[in-house]
Amino acid sequence: MSDTLLTDELVLKDQFPGLLAKGGADWHYLDTAATAQKPLAVIDATVRAMGEDYATVHRGVYARSADMTLAFEAARRRVAAFMNAREDEIVFTRGATESMNLVAQTWGAANLKAGDRILLSTLEHHSNIVPWQLLREKTGVAIDVCPLTDDGRIDLTAAERILTPAHKLVAFAHVSNVLGSVLHVEQAAKLAHAVGAKLLIDGCQAAPRLALDMAAFDCDFYAFSAHKLYGPTGIGVLWARKEILDDMPPWQGGGAMIDRVTFEKTTFASAPQRFEAGTPSIVEAVGMAAAMDWLSGVGLDRAERHERDLATLLRAELRKRNDVTLFGPEDGLGIVSFALDGVHPHDLGTILDEEGVAIRAGHHCAQPLMEHLGVPATARASFGLYSDEADIEALLKGIERTRRIFG
Amino acid sequence: MSDTLLTDELVLKDQFPGLLAKGGADWHYLDTAATAQKPLAVIDATVRAMGEDYATVHRGVYARSADMTLAFEAARRRVAAFMNAREDEIVFTRGATESMNLVAQTWGAANLKAGDRILLSTLEHHSNIVPWQLLREKTGVAIDVCPLTDDGRIDLTAAERILTPAHKLVAFAHVSNVLGSVLHVEQAAKLAHAVGAKLLIDGCQAAPRLALDMAAFDCDFYAFSAHKLYGPTGIGVLWARKEILDDMPPWQGGGAMIDRVTFEKTTFASAPQRFEAGTPSIVEAVGMAAAMDWLSGVGLDRAERHERDLATLLRAELRKRNDVTLFGPEDGLGIVSFALDGVHPHDLGTILDEEGVAIRAGHHCAQPLMEHLGVPATARASFGLYSDEADIEALLKGIERTRRIFG
Repeated sequence: MSDTLLTDELVLKDQFPGLLAKGGADWHYLDTAATAQKPLAVIDATVRAMGEDYATVHRGVYARSADMTLAFEAARRRVAAFMNAREDEIVFTRGATESMNLVAQTWGAANLKAGDRILLSTLEHHSNIVPWQLLREKTGVAIDVCPLTDDGRIDLTAAERILTPAHKLVAFAHVSNVLGSVLHVEQAAKLAHAVGAKLLIDGCQAAPRLALDMAAFDCDFYAFSAHKLYGPTGIGVLWARKEILDDMPPWQGGGAMIDRVTFEKTTFASAPQRFEAGTPSIVEAVGMAAAMDWLSGVGLDRAERHERDLATLLRAELRKRNDVTLFGPEDGLGIVSFALDGVHPHDLGTILDEEGVAIRAGHHCAQPLMEHLGVPATARASFGLYSDEADIEALLKGIERTRRIFG
Repeated sequence: MSDTLLTDELVLKDQFPGLLAKGGADWHYLDTAATAQKPLAVIDATVRAMGEDYATVHRGVYARSADMTLAFEAARRRVAAFMNAREDEIVFTRGATESMNLVAQTWGAANLKAGDRILLSTLEHHSNIVPWQLLREKTGVAIDVCPLTDDGRIDLTAAERILTPAHKLVAFAHVSNVLGSVLHVEQAAKLAHAVGAKLLIDGCQAAPRLALDMAAFDCDFYAFSAHKLYGPTGIGVLWARKEILDDMPPWQGGGAMIDRVTFEKTTFASAPQRFEAGTPSIVEAVGMAAAMDWLSGVGLDRAERHERDLATLLRAELRKRNDVTLFGPEDGLGIVSFALDGVHPHDLGTILDEEGVAIRAGHHCAQPLMEHLGVPATARASFGLYSDEADIEALLKGIERTRRIFG
């Protein structure tokens, strides 16, 4: 491999028990866009929260429950700080998918009607398509699709052309989970707001790779999952502007989201509690805060640089081969999709697995994008903060072996 | 204290790191009905699933992901076995609250209309009231309330009188979270089915205390949370009869719940996957299976006896005082609500906390039941498998001290 392009050598692998393969062999995990491995800091926080600190929140009169309530609400403040947002704008959800469904089924159902239009893009993940289709079935709202530039970015020039005052919502991915292309959120917000539409951002792949700044982005909704951010499964975040959140009707009914219940009439708590029915994901909230502490400790600026450097390096190496097609823009972030001529991505993935290299092969929950690319599937390598040049070397070696097998 | 009533001495406390108070003092946790402490077996399973075994499910072409998919689907089979149900009838949800909202917003929205009626009971938890009220707002369905017997059971004789062919759903708690009273599910199912209604059971307090048997119960929906069952937060179960589940429309859209996505038309996966949009609570599913292994290892028959014995013992001790009012039936399961004359439950709870005794004081998310009892709140002691006579002794000592303080 040529000279390193890495400007900042991070040495973090030994903090991740998940990166050790069974039997102690080297394991090269290149599927972080699916889910990130967890640092010891997150695992340890989980163990404490499930053990010596464990209690319910918001209800107990005893000290342990009061302490856990403080930790739970401190986690909400941690998320707010992580996003540069207000604490009362943070709703804990099961994950980004639920965050987007929550917006569709509360804000969407209350505010959109037949004749209104939603603008999505060709590269959206199914979780930012299907909730709007379900809303379309209920309300008759129409869905438009913003095309991509030739190199695989959401084409904001086209978006400007498409948008009309009938558009009430624009819902775009911040970073494509297939191509790594990065949206200029501020620009998208300007275009959406110019026609009076709200902007929802699917931040799943951005949150672990870029500093989030709700004040600067000027979007209206932002969604991401903790498990892609080195945190626990089972929890995610919906951020929404306070005045929008305050106006949204409740979605799920139950304990903790009410003010007063009688069989005749129930009144609801204010946001964000109104959207958090039932015992919350207490341990997971504490774990997510630990993940944000850890990630912020490394630094989001370093994360962005690392993810960009690794993607650039891999693209440069793959371009040296004459049998690889690269998808997506040159400056993609942490995610590289490609095809090896004459080899189905699944076969490549299977052979790589034998070499201790884990990539993803498939449609990546983005079937419309696959159709646009004209392929049924891609091979995808995606990086995390623990990824390094050794992972890329192992991948390249595995591709070479696959080539030899397939001829 | 008088002779023990415990027929089966369980010695399990040392398996629960959460039962050690800070500083190593004795801690008497009597709030298991709010949430159960976690045994080491569950914490260890969580650590492994977050660490050396961690990967996403259903998507990876590499061995680790295939292994985790097996573990995740084994967890579904574990739940099915725990309930004596079919594996394809088990939907993983965030918890019981989400399970009931899922039924309301899919089956309910698709099948209930103005003129139809739902029968709840006076003792229901808010999570089995508010979802139906939200459905009432959307559909115009009417809600009836089944009264209780004098000793605090759902009055099935009254239910039989109330039920008409207009009733499409009966939704009752299996075990009251305030009174510990146990519903005769089979009898309730007979009454519901006699008028053509479905029966939904809120099993939150039953699942940790009674052997579940979907085949014998003959209900149509059953919901519970893992965190009350010695398992993780952030996961729960909806069981529904296969033919009902198959007919239910999707609720949340996203990855994993689809068959094929295009912008024009999306087709959905079959149940239960249709109801599991997005990356699931992978670690939590594995943890829940470990909790069920642990609980089944102790034995549900022993759990039921233990929970009944402790409640009986506490009631007997409290009855010796002339300043305590007991709520609920004599044979309540693991949960005892009471009032100490002249002392607000919160004050009692606070003083008990100083003595290292954790009880719950409040409306227990059952405000209509509080109104029925004529109190704003009760003090509630609730037991788990780790509870023992020492916990009851500490509670009684604390009550006596409170009496001396309040005179």
